[in-house]
Amino acid sequence: MITYELDKKSSEPLYVQIYTKIKEDMESGAIRSDEKLPSKRNFASNLGVSVITIENAYNQLIAEGYIRSVPHKGYFAEKLSANIVGKSPEKKISTPAVIENDAENRLFPFTIWAKLMREELSSNQSNLLKKPTFEGVYELREAISHHLKQFRNITASPEQIIIGAGSEYLYMLMNILFSVGRNYTFAVEEPGYSKIAEIYANYGIKCERIPVLDDGIDTDYLKKIDPNIIHISPSHHFPTGVITSVSKRYSLLEWASSSEDRFIIEDDYDSEFRLSGKPIPSMYSIDVMDKVIYMNTFSKSLASTIRISYMVLPQTFLHKYREKLGFCSCPVSTFEQYTLARFIDGGYFEKHINRMRAHYKKCRSELFGKMKKFDIFKNSVISGENSGLHCIVEFQSDLHDEELLEQVSALGFKAMMIKNFYHETVGQDYHTLIFPY
Amino acid sequence: MITYELDKKSSEPLYVQIYTKIKEDMESGAIRSDEKLPSKRNFASNLGVSVITIENAYNQLIAEGYIRSVPHKGYFAEKLSANIVGKSPEKKISTPAVIENDAENRLFPFTIWAKLMREELSSNQSNLLKKPTFEGVYELREAISHHLKQFRNITASPEQIIIGAGSEYLYMLMNILFSVGRNYTFAVEEPGYSKIAEIYANYGIKCERIPVLDDGIDTDYLKKIDPNIIHISPSHHFPTGVITSVSKRYSLLEWASSSEDRFIIEDDYDSEFRLSGKPIPSMYSIDVMDKVIYMNTFSKSLASTIRISYMVLPQTFLHKYREKLGFCSCPVSTFEQYTLARFIDGGYFEKHINRMRAHYKKCRSELFGKMKKFDIFKNSVISGENSGLHCIVEFQSDLHDEELLEQVSALGFKAMMIKNFYHETVGQDYHTLIFPY
Repeated sequence: MITYELDKKSSEPLYVQIYTKIKEDMESGAIRSDEKLPSKRNFASNLGVSVITIENAYNQLIAEGYIRSVPHKGYFAEKLSANIVGKSPEKKISTPAVIENDAENRLFPFTIWAKLMREELSSNQSNLLKKPTFEGVYELREAISHHLKQFRNITASPEQIIIGAGSEYLYMLMNILFSVGRNYTFAVEEPGYSKIAEIYANYGIKCERIPVLDDGIDTDYLKKIDPNIIHISPSHHFPTGVITSVSKRYSLLEWASSSEDRFIIEDDYDSEFRLSGKPIPSMYSIDVMDKVIYMNTFSKSLASTIRISYMVLPQTFLHKYREKLGFCSCPVSTFEQYTLARFIDGGYFEKHINRMRAHYKKCRSELFGKMKKFDIFKNSVISGENSGLHCIVEFQSDLHDEELLEQVSALGFKAMMIKNFYHETVGQDYHTLIFPY
Repeated sequence: MITYELDKKSSEPLYVQIYTKIKEDMESGAIRSDEKLPSKRNFASNLGVSVITIENAYNQLIAEGYIRSVPHKGYFAEKLSANIVGKSPEKKISTPAVIENDAENRLFPFTIWAKLMREELSSNQSNLLKKPTFEGVYELREAISHHLKQFRNITASPEQIIIGAGSEYLYMLMNILFSVGRNYTFAVEEPGYSKIAEIYANYGIKCERIPVLDDGIDTDYLKKIDPNIIHISPSHHFPTGVITSVSKRYSLLEWASSSEDRFIIEDDYDSEFRLSGKPIPSMYSIDVMDKVIYMNTFSKSLASTIRISYMVLPQTFLHKYREKLGFCSCPVSTFEQYTLARFIDGGYFEKHINRMRAHYKKCRSELFGKMKKFDIFKNSVISGENSGLHCIVEFQSDLHDEELLEQVSALGFKAMMIKNFYHETVGQDYHTLIFPY
């Protein structure tokens, strides 16, 4: 039977991967016309995916005329005409729109955002048409500066703040700043948000992975591999929920300050959603050696369709940064920048965060209540439940992670296997699942 | 006297460069406290800049407490306190906002744009909060697809169109696509829009420069240096105004198609502003070997504060592209993307372009009329006047370019020296100035 290597960590849905591979095989002739394709059930079990995944892939291929369904017989490859294989502009390769979390959409204060944007459109025409400097609109950087002071106890002047178009854009800048011409080695957290390493790797950056322990990354391992840049999320590590301890923070700062070629990128992307407990000071705010670059994004805290991120550069970095990247235009439209400035200044961002926190707290208590009802959660250990948008459950069970996932899914829980966030999992079971609120 | 190397091609104003250098010298101790700084006039003549430039730099330094002005004595360095040198968040390093062309701002149909954006805000909430695929909002890609067909005779399906946040963002993508892991050599045009080469160089891309002849880039030179990627603007080269001839286009396509590792980036950034004459087909539209990547931007044709660009990928490229860059989020907010889609579909983009063209035509005829009045333009040769937003004037004169510039400026003309757009100018005079309309 056809066997494909699927990338379960990819941002591309599995069905799109299968769909793409079948199409490629048809185009290359590996699947001949009129060949029978595997049944949905067999194919699913062979690839280790759900039947629905195969069904989605087949349906897309049928819709585009690549395969046909014959009742009671199965699925067959169509004969490829020039129309389909060739340079036809009608040929559709559709990636389905990624549907975001409904809660996020329901909670986004769209009416207020729309009102502020309308106000900007009515009252700020001349500024909206004035091209900002590469750092972004000053008013927004001022609003962020105030916000950081008030809510994160970070002292950063607007001059130190650079606006970007989402986190990925900031990662690109980090590449130019540190990798090009310097060949600095980066290190990210393992397990971790795989996109960061993927993006760095795509730039050709040498990127190592450092295990995350109970109190932050493993500093022995850090010293062993000796990278130049560590990209970490000390206030809330994804997916483990680990919060880097204060002493570990100092130890990381010590590491960074003992060489000119070492820096720390503090990715604070969901620090706003800490649900309880005392917030720990950011690394940036305790750094006196200008070693920490702080970054955060509104795409996570506000709405994924508003692509605005920012970073705070150490004072002594500004000249260097301007020299290397001062030629860039700010990639975010002024319309959005002014609207966001107004949104923050008007106190709406704070209100939104509070609302989101209350919402996630409610979800969390509902989730915990529901968990209590089922035996499978007996004696399981919950961690990372105070910060961010999910918790981690380690089960007392000999079941494989896949089986655990299947069982809790059958009980109506939404969960993910933590092992998917490890770069290298040697078939290991962690008996641990992630439960988003 | 203090002498600084200034970068006249830099996007950073000269006064900011001087201000920065003086500050650095003070911080490093090269300028001691209470040292007298050169007089504005002497300093200006020494650096080859205007007195106003020095004045601006000095005023900024005074405002920030770095230097003091003593009446009838001159300017003196202040003693640097920890407040100024250290990590003071109040310390301002201000880059002045870049003020855009007034004409552009006046002509941008702000009222219509605002109306369409309001309509989107009122009617399209659920889509505005739906995260698009990495390629961008489908409706916008569809609108661009229709636009390209109608106005550029380019057949490209929406699936082939990728939305970016300004041209520079697309250049970044080109880097990931072609340079990382492949080490492809790029080549750009000489003279040319210096930012392109600068950006590529910042990524560590090996970037050559190919002389532009009367009919496009020098193909003999191209074959000699043998790059992988050529980044060119065949419909209107900046700053010479050269339009690549049809036969040269075929010869470039032949070059590209004779090796798997050769591609052409067709940067069509101001093709909309062709003022007269028959438009020449795009390279993309005559390419049958999938060798041309077409790119364009609305930041140039619409408003510099709307950061939306796009590129058209050859069909056979889509899989490869998705594999390498499919993990990226589209960097442009959905609010802007839907508004632009509506703007194009409603015919407003076409109307805007027509209005701009009429405006630039009028400016051109006024400029030519004014030129006729002055002897210095006698027997001069005008070129590149039909496409784009400026023309080139080659003078019959033995004057140095700087003197020419001074003379026409004194007559009230706005002009630039073409030699500023050459990467290497060995003190050569071109007797040629660029006149924007």
